[in-house]
Amino acid sequence: MSDRKVMTIDALQHQEPSRELFEEWRQGNLSVISSSLVLWEGARRALDEIKRWDRLFEEHDDLIYQIRSSADIQAAADSERTGVILSFQNSSPYEEDLDMVAIFKQLGINIVQLTYNNQNPVGGSCYEPNDSGLARYGYELIEEMARVGVLIDLSHVGDRTSLDVIAASKVPVAITHANPRTTKDVDLWQRNKPDEVIKALADAGGVIGLSFYPHLVVGGSDCTPDWFFGMVRDTVDKFGIDCVGLGSDFHSTLTVEFLEYSQQGTWKRDLPEGIEDMDYKPAYPSWARNSADYPKVAEMFSAHGFSDDEIEKIMGENWLRLFKATF
Amino acid sequence: MSDRKVMTIDALQHQEPSRELFEEWRQGNLSVISSSLVLWEGARRALDEIKRWDRLFEEHDDLIYQIRSSADIQAAADSERTGVILSFQNSSPYEEDLDMVAIFKQLGINIVQLTYNNQNPVGGSCYEPNDSGLARYGYELIEEMARVGVLIDLSHVGDRTSLDVIAASKVPVAITHANPRTTKDVDLWQRNKPDEVIKALADAGGVIGLSFYPHLVVGGSDCTPDWFFGMVRDTVDKFGIDCVGLGSDFHSTLTVEFLEYSQQGTWKRDLPEGIEDMDYKPAYPSWARNSADYPKVAEMFSAHGFSDDEIEKIMGENWLRLFKATF
Repeated sequence: MSDRKVMTIDALQHQEPSRELFEEWRQGNLSVISSSLVLWEGARRALDEIKRWDRLFEEHDDLIYQIRSSADIQAAADSERTGVILSFQNSSPYEEDLDMVAIFKQLGINIVQLTYNNQNPVGGSCYEPNDSGLARYGYELIEEMARVGVLIDLSHVGDRTSLDVIAASKVPVAITHANPRTTKDVDLWQRNKPDEVIKALADAGGVIGLSFYPHLVVGGSDCTPDWFFGMVRDTVDKFGIDCVGLGSDFHSTLTVEFLEYSQQGTWKRDLPEGIEDMDYKPAYPSWARNSADYPKVAEMFSAHGFSDDEIEKIMGENWLRLFKATF
Repeated sequence: MSDRKVMTIDALQHQEPSRELFEEWRQGNLSVISSSLVLWEGARRALDEIKRWDRLFEEHDDLIYQIRSSADIQAAADSERTGVILSFQNSSPYEEDLDMVAIFKQLGINIVQLTYNNQNPVGGSCYEPNDSGLARYGYELIEEMARVGVLIDLSHVGDRTSLDVIAASKVPVAITHANPRTTKDVDLWQRNKPDEVIKALADAGGVIGLSFYPHLVVGGSDCTPDWFFGMVRDTVDKFGIDCVGLGSDFHSTLTVEFLEYSQQGTWKRDLPEGIEDMDYKPAYPSWARNSADYPKVAEMFSAHGFSDDEIEKIMGENWLRLFKATF
């Protein structure tokens, strides 16, 4: 890889924000990050998170700024600050009201995952024993999101619902943070995606953000670069270079209490079965500990035989293309 | 039927409340009615409806009073006023928070339908193309409702989810307003229940409220007494006398605008396909136009060969038993 900085986009982090975090993003030369604000919450609590970020954008405007439009995205490549896309990991803030898509769009919400870990009125989650497929409201919602310009995220969505969405959507969609399932069929975390879903996504012009999250890779915290970059190579070979991006799922700043809430919300008194003993805060691999390691990741792509062209697409340009086309 | 009044319970009406309506209930000698407050709404709007009824109970305390407990239900048979159970036709006001079951119970919400017309985090609706069955949150919710003492209503719930609920529930559950599907497989309104669901419900000690709603009966507004009381007889013969009650689904006081909202809520811009031409306000059969006709209905049961014992059970005692056991 040549010396010039590669434009880097991370399609999903869910973090407790702080100046320290924003400095880490700058160390990683992150041009764009999608920051998730919502897991289970409704409209009112989503507004609280947006308010919080509005203040952060003001207070830390030397390090970060908000990306609201395609024009902002276009400018991000040349900025010395990190552009932040505010996103939801659940469509719950829309509260089954189509007009809320445009309301939250005006507030800068540009990427929304249709379901988090439970079924909702849109469709099935990857963690439900039975995936309903896209439900009646789901068909209405994805049409409205396309009209308004909000990117659909399928990361935690069930396989059947994902295929329904890709088939029904008039615009490309995203999987912001997941890996191919065939590389590791994770027992506890049924979150990685089967080839059928990735192929359909790629054929429709979508992008998948491959993740460093220990529960989604082989070897967990000890995941080797050889495995990870081999997995990326396999994904490129199978589905094409234009559908592959990165979505770290970095969330080390969250407390254990918050991570428990991420699993049980208020819908369950105790953690879901089989998850009690889970390590909620596993260390990320030593070569991708946090955002500051992105320049190292770029070098490792090079060391693992990826061309400059491939690296630029994977590390940022594929997301740039999709975000520009969508927002 | 002897001259004494038969205790009458109507397990579901969704009405625009007024003194005129309450007078109609008294004309019908209704001892107990379950009045639905919610179709699509969340907690805050449910509270608005409860506030409204709190005022109504004060202003019209010569005609109605609120039923909150098993003791209230026991006393209802001897009251000269109509006891009103406040109920929801959707679990949406709980907002995926188990602790909200006890909150709304304290406010008098004693019967809650798990889903209205769309899939939700609890399970599938009868109107969804695919019924997920009971979802992860659904298993938690029905356990909490049983613990707190809120009757589960499956009227608009999908068949598969209904069977899952009946199998998983430790307490009897209800179908407050539906008819057997085999008497008329309604194309538009897939609301009537298959024998498999009614049998499972009955075997578990539950009750189904048979309905006069024109879209749920053969002949619509011209439905004949012979058909209706024949259908009741068939239901008693198939599933036993202890599982049969009445749930009129009277809602003639609602506006056409509200009825359209009942179908599309805020989740759809236009009415669901096939429903645009539906008659939203069909006249109820001439022999069961509204609550005032209940004494006539009691007489017609007698004329159609039902014994006093059977009439008492169908018109009120079966619901009385289930409500007392649950609340």
